[in-house]
Amino acid sequence: MVTMKDIAAKLGISLSTVSKGLSGASDISEDLRQSILDAAVEMGYKPKKQKKDYRKKLCIFIENIEYASPDSFGYELILGFRQMADREGFDIVVVPINTAFQSRERFDTYMLRNGFAGAFVIGLSLYDEWMHQLKETTVPCVLFDNYISTNPNVGYVGTDSFEGIDLCVSHLARLGHTKIAFLNGIAGSMVTADRHEAFLQSMQRNHLIVDEKLAVFGTYEADCAKYYVPGFLTKGVTAIVCGSDTIADGVIGECIRKGVRVPEDISVTGFDDLPLASTLQPPLTSVWQDRISLGKCGFVVLSALMHKIPIGKAVLRPRLITRASSAYL
Amino acid sequence: MVTMKDIAAKLGISLSTVSKGLSGASDISEDLRQSILDAAVEMGYKPKKQKKDYRKKLCIFIENIEYASPDSFGYELILGFRQMADREGFDIVVVPINTAFQSRERFDTYMLRNGFAGAFVIGLSLYDEWMHQLKETTVPCVLFDNYISTNPNVGYVGTDSFEGIDLCVSHLARLGHTKIAFLNGIAGSMVTADRHEAFLQSMQRNHLIVDEKLAVFGTYEADCAKYYVPGFLTKGVTAIVCGSDTIADGVIGECIRKGVRVPEDISVTGFDDLPLASTLQPPLTSVWQDRISLGKCGFVVLSALMHKIPIGKAVLRPRLITRASSAYL
Repeated sequence: MVTMKDIAAKLGISLSTVSKGLSGASDISEDLRQSILDAAVEMGYKPKKQKKDYRKKLCIFIENIEYASPDSFGYELILGFRQMADREGFDIVVVPINTAFQSRERFDTYMLRNGFAGAFVIGLSLYDEWMHQLKETTVPCVLFDNYISTNPNVGYVGTDSFEGIDLCVSHLARLGHTKIAFLNGIAGSMVTADRHEAFLQSMQRNHLIVDEKLAVFGTYEADCAKYYVPGFLTKGVTAIVCGSDTIADGVIGECIRKGVRVPEDISVTGFDDLPLASTLQPPLTSVWQDRISLGKCGFVVLSALMHKIPIGKAVLRPRLITRASSAYL
Repeated sequence: MVTMKDIAAKLGISLSTVSKGLSGASDISEDLRQSILDAAVEMGYKPKKQKKDYRKKLCIFIENIEYASPDSFGYELILGFRQMADREGFDIVVVPINTAFQSRERFDTYMLRNGFAGAFVIGLSLYDEWMHQLKETTVPCVLFDNYISTNPNVGYVGTDSFEGIDLCVSHLARLGHTKIAFLNGIAGSMVTADRHEAFLQSMQRNHLIVDEKLAVFGTYEADCAKYYVPGFLTKGVTAIVCGSDTIADGVIGECIRKGVRVPEDISVTGFDDLPLASTLQPPLTSVWQDRISLGKCGFVVLSALMHKIPIGKAVLRPRLITRASSAYL
């Protein structure tokens, strides 16, 4: 078992300095404290006073996603996670993070210093500092909607993109649409790539002609609609599948500006079923992500990783909520 | 709550006949007993004497996969499942099945009659009767290596085909191979389709030229090698990725018959890391499936489904075991 003496020996510093570094005392430099904590992580040191409860404290990191109000996406993810974790006696701490936080704190170091046995990480951006660090982390960690390849300590949970997009395309095909476009989010993440592939596969499965030029990557902002919708309309598209409700919001707005009616002229579908989906005019047909279950699944996978069961991905079944934005051709 | 009286009323038979049907008494016809059990399932009836332990009895069905000897694939899958289930107080019954069993017994009926709260199903064939029934089942059920779309009561567990095939292709690319063929198993299942797609993606990721004619579907038998290996050799292939160890066994045999040396002239990789992989001449580089963890994951997902968390898929991280069958070009 690694002791404070081992850390002192490795770094060539005194035992009392190591003790100060691990206890968070303020009379040593921040650089030195980071080195001590880094070495402690690297060597597998576990502080004694935390040992008893080490297994029982988990952290939820959240960035870029609203979680304060009870109808927000993040709120329900966190609630679901807690519902599973509480019954197994875990304490949960929610820590909002941003890019500044990530450049200040190393992931593994933060986890060790605060005695967390594992983390559920929600809303990281693709180019965030921690996305790099998580490739090598030894601390069990589950990411919502982000994927890290190879590392057996990191799992991904999300909603099945293939089934979600297939629900939209099959629904539109049943309504008689054959010329269907897909306005996706920004390229680069596994989720966006999966939805692109899912669209092409589902068009084929529904015996519809696949025109790859009608399956485009935009951004996850409503604003991106104005760059793509005019082209779709020129090409005679009668339905637009969107990679998120926000994109769909932009698409409906752009159609209205062009004097095109939804759903009379164009059917539109979203993804996420955010609260805005039901308040849009017309209300939006969208893929419902079961957020409470996603949170619960996050805990289930984290618990498996803590049992050394290397789950890389777990995806939930989506459901299509049909509203007025999609109609018979 | 549904009672025996309700079942009697629905079927227009006496209460005592229903009671006989549910208790397995022998003095009613088998057809009538099936109707009673079918109605009981359809109506959501739970027998009283089983109610107390209903939650605590699980079934493992196994077909087509060896599980008797301790080094067999099935043995370890079952062991892993038991290891997780036992600690939560579940009783496990292992039931070997075949096509005759499946045409005799309806899945839901069998589960109800025997008081099973859920099932782990190993080795079903794509066209098995139960594959149809599972599309509609209301009993929580996890399939190893088989996928049922849409039904929130059914989950899939397996090894990540994308990471597994990518490990093989990237390994061969690092060894200097650029002309790589893929001899897959029989087309039709999600696993086989995923591995095909994974091969194309991984070739691209490794900046190798993708020739779709070199990615072919065979069968999962060693015998299929003779139909494809000669063509690969004619086309100047220097490495063959195989969809299973059994296929790789056939490929090595076919190379030897043709006077082609493995690995001097052709590198070969397998998938599964069965015991045969290490005894082949030369020993086979293969993707290791962590069978104990797969069994554990089966229980984790089944437990989630029983908690109404609709996990559709969960995949484990694979690992590449490199042996003498792959070498520098």
